[in-house]
Amino acid sequence: MKARVIVTLKNGVLDPQGKAIEGALGGLGFSDIGSVRQGKVFDLDLTSTDKAAAEAEVAQMCEKLLANTVIENYVIELL
Amino acid sequence: MKARVIVTLKNGVLDPQGKAIEGALGGLGFSDIGSVRQGKVFDLDLTSTDKAAAEAEVAQMCEKLLANTVIENYVIELL
Repeated sequence: MKARVIVTLKNGVLDPQGKAIEGALGGLGFSDIGSVRQGKVFDLDLTSTDKAAAEAEVAQMCEKLLANTVIENYVIELL
Repeated sequence: MKARVIVTLKNGVLDPQGKAIEGALGGLGFSDIGSVRQGKVFDLDLTSTDKAAAEAEVAQMCEKLLANTVIENYVIELL
């Protein structure tokens, strides 16, 4: 079973990397940019075939390693 | 208009960061991991309201800055 985890910064957390990209896009002539925020995506290949068990396990992975839940949100999609 | 861009490594491109995460997850006791690949996600806030124009502009941003199209694929989602 495949799972995709998308980790994004929580609202209110400063994102200097996103700001830098925003500036670079402006410099390239893209003028209608409001804001940019960067996050991470993890594509996991799981040997488990049970959907509920897989989702619970991926949530554990996010809590323990993939996301810093103090400043980041995560969303799990099972494909 | 909001857009989300997901940039992932093409198949066959080595992903040492993903391999490291795979090893770390194994070390934490998650045993049913097949493979992990890491990518990037960009959340863009656009002032444009025309969907087709926005999509074309975001594709240009990907080609010019957000993705290295030699080794990376990108997917654009307009929200």
